[in-house]
Amino acid sequence: MLLQNKEIPIHIDLPGDRGYDLVFSSISALPAKMRDAGLRPGKCLVITDTNVAAHYRNPLVSVLSSDGWDPFVLALPAGEETKSTAHLTAIYNAALAWNIDRKTPVLALGGGVIGDLAGFAASTLLRGLPFVQIPTSLIAQVDSAIGGKTGINHPEGKNLIGAFYQPKLVLIDSKLLYTLPRREWTSGLAEVVKHALIDDEAFFAWIEAEIRQIVARDPRIVSDLVYRAAGIKAKIVSEDEFEHGKRATLNFGHTFGHAIEKALGYGVFTHGEAVNMGMKAAVFMSRRFNRKVEHERALSILSLISSPTIPSSIGIPDIRMAMSTDKKKVSDRNHFVLLRRIGEAYVTDDVTVSDIDAAIAFALGRP
Amino acid sequence: MLLQNKEIPIHIDLPGDRGYDLVFSSISALPAKMRDAGLRPGKCLVITDTNVAAHYRNPLVSVLSSDGWDPFVLALPAGEETKSTAHLTAIYNAALAWNIDRKTPVLALGGGVIGDLAGFAASTLLRGLPFVQIPTSLIAQVDSAIGGKTGINHPEGKNLIGAFYQPKLVLIDSKLLYTLPRREWTSGLAEVVKHALIDDEAFFAWIEAEIRQIVARDPRIVSDLVYRAAGIKAKIVSEDEFEHGKRATLNFGHTFGHAIEKALGYGVFTHGEAVNMGMKAAVFMSRRFNRKVEHERALSILSLISSPTIPSSIGIPDIRMAMSTDKKKVSDRNHFVLLRRIGEAYVTDDVTVSDIDAAIAFALGRP
Repeated sequence: MLLQNKEIPIHIDLPGDRGYDLVFSSISALPAKMRDAGLRPGKCLVITDTNVAAHYRNPLVSVLSSDGWDPFVLALPAGEETKSTAHLTAIYNAALAWNIDRKTPVLALGGGVIGDLAGFAASTLLRGLPFVQIPTSLIAQVDSAIGGKTGINHPEGKNLIGAFYQPKLVLIDSKLLYTLPRREWTSGLAEVVKHALIDDEAFFAWIEAEIRQIVARDPRIVSDLVYRAAGIKAKIVSEDEFEHGKRATLNFGHTFGHAIEKALGYGVFTHGEAVNMGMKAAVFMSRRFNRKVEHERALSILSLISSPTIPSSIGIPDIRMAMSTDKKKVSDRNHFVLLRRIGEAYVTDDVTVSDIDAAIAFALGRP
Repeated sequence: MLLQNKEIPIHIDLPGDRGYDLVFSSISALPAKMRDAGLRPGKCLVITDTNVAAHYRNPLVSVLSSDGWDPFVLALPAGEETKSTAHLTAIYNAALAWNIDRKTPVLALGGGVIGDLAGFAASTLLRGLPFVQIPTSLIAQVDSAIGGKTGINHPEGKNLIGAFYQPKLVLIDSKLLYTLPRREWTSGLAEVVKHALIDDEAFFAWIEAEIRQIVARDPRIVSDLVYRAAGIKAKIVSEDEFEHGKRATLNFGHTFGHAIEKALGYGVFTHGEAVNMGMKAAVFMSRRFNRKVEHERALSILSLISSPTIPSSIGIPDIRMAMSTDKKKVSDRNHFVLLRRIGEAYVTDDVTVSDIDAAIAFALGRP
C-alpha cells in the first residue's frame, strides 16, 4: 500500500493565475469541481472521440445538464490522425457557429489525442477559452493531461504545432480505465514506469512488488497507481512549466522511442510500446555511463509490461536517422535523458554515434 | 515638444520571463538589439508582405547577415485576406521544411496583418518560438505590435483564432513610416488619438496644437508622436496583459468600429477609418452620460484626421445587428468603452438600444 489520501487534490502551482488542481474523483462530481475552479454554468463544448463517447457521452451530458450546463458534444474519429489541422478546423467551425463567448469552457473527454487537440483548440479560440481535462486513458491520466502541453501533428512530424496552455481543472476518474482496451493499458504503464525510473525509487519498488496486479489491472491497485504516477508528473511540471530544465527528464526513452515510431511508421507500435523499447535503449546507455544504474531491475519490469519486436527490415541506421528530425532538439544535437540511478535522471548531449548505435542494437535485441 | 529621450527603451514589465523592450531605433541596430534580448545568431524566419518587402527586404537581410544570421524570408500578399489559415499553413510548411529548432526566431516585418499572423505562427510552432516585431505601419508601431495579441481571421469574424504571445523585442523605426501610403498614415492616426483620448490629456493637447503637422506627416513630429503613443499602449498592456480590466479601454470606438467594418463589408473602410467613425459614436455616447466630456474638442480632431461617409444603403439597424456577433462580448451584452473626460475611460454595459442607435446615427451624420 502507498498509504495516500486520494481525496486530496494535487495542486499544480504556477505563476500568474495558471495554477490548477488535479482532482481524483468520479465524473459525477464534475459540476461541483468546475464551480470550485471558478466556472459558472452556461454553454460548454465537449470534445471526445467516438470510442469514448460510446461509454461516457450520455453520463457526462447528464451530469453537466443537471447543474445547468448546456453541453455541445463533438465526437471525432478515434486515433492519432485526428490530431490534424482538419479536425482542429472542425472544432473551430462548430464552436464559432454555436456562438461561444470568452467564458465558454472546452472539456476534453478522451485520451492524449483528444486532450492535445481540444487543449490546442481551447488555447486558440478567442485567444483562449477555459479548458477542462477529463482524461480517459492511463497515459492521459498520468501524463498527457497534466502540464499544459497541447498541439496537433504536421506532415513533417508529431506535435510540431501547439502551445503551452494550462487547464483550469483536471478531473481524474480511475474507474474509467476499466473500459480501456488491454493494449492501451499496457501502453500507459510504460509512462508510469518512466515516472518511477526518473523520479521515485520507492514507487519503482512498489511497482516491482505489485507488477502482476499492475499488468492485470487489478482494481486493488489501479487508483493508487494513477494517483502516485500523476503526482510525479504534477511535481515536475510545477517546477518547470515550459521545459527549460527538469521537465525534459520526462522525455526519458522518448528520443529513442520517437525515432522507433517514426522509422517503423506511425501506428505499428502504440506510443507506449515505442517508449518502452526506447527506455530499454536509454537504460542500456545509462548503465554505460553510470555504474549505479541497476539496469537489470529496470529492464525486467519493462519487459514484463511489453516486449514487441521490430521487423528485421528496419535497421539501426534507420532509427538513428529518424532521430535527426526530432523536434526535441534544441539545436543541432539530440539530447538524451539518462539515469544516474533508478529514481534520478539528467539530460546530456555528450554521447557518441557508437553509444547511440549500441543502445539501439540492445533495445532491438540485435547484439 | 514632448521633451522625451527616445534613446531609452520602454520596458514592458510582465510576470515570468515575458517582459520585453520597445526599442526606438533604426533597423541597422537590429542585430545588437536581438543580442540584448538574448537571441544568438543562427537561422531566423522573416515574415513580411510584398509591399514592405519591396522597400525593406534587402536592407533587413543585409543587416541580419552581417551579424551572422541566416534569414529565410517569406513575403506574403499584402492585405487582410492574408490573416488566414491558408497563409498560416504556408508559414508552418516553410518553417518546418527549413528544419527550424526551438531557438529559431520569427521576425515580423510589416503592419498589423503580418504582425498578428507571424506572431500566431511563432506562438504555435514547436509550442513557441522567440518572436521579434519590426512594425512598419503607424498602427502597428503604436498599437498592434505591442502587447502580445496575435491571431488570424475566421469566416465567422476577425481575430477569432489567436493567442496572447509576447515578443522578445519590438524594434520601432519611425523612419519606416515615410514610405507608408497616405491613407495608412491617416488610419494609424485614429489609434494615436484613441490612446490620447483614453489615457493622456496632455498628449491630446499636444495633438491639437500640432494637428496640421501630424496630418501632413511632418518629420519634426513623427518620432515624438510614435514614442508617446507607443508608451501609452505599453503602460496599459503592462498593467493588464490578458485584458481582464484596463486593457479593454483600448477598445474605445471599436465596438462601433468593428460593427461598421462588418456592416459595410471588410475592406471598404480601413480599420482606422472605421475606428475613427466608431470613436465619433463613442464620444457622442460618452457626452450623453458624462457632462465633463469636451466632445467638441474630440470630434474636431477626429474629423480633421478622416471623415469618410457611409453609403445610404447601410442603415442604423444593420450596424446594430453587426454588434451582436462581436467577439469582444464576454457574455450576452456588448461592452462599451466611454470617456469620463478626455484622458480617462471606463467600460460599461449599462446602455440601452436607443443610446446605441442615437450614437450610430450621430456618427453617420443622420440626425
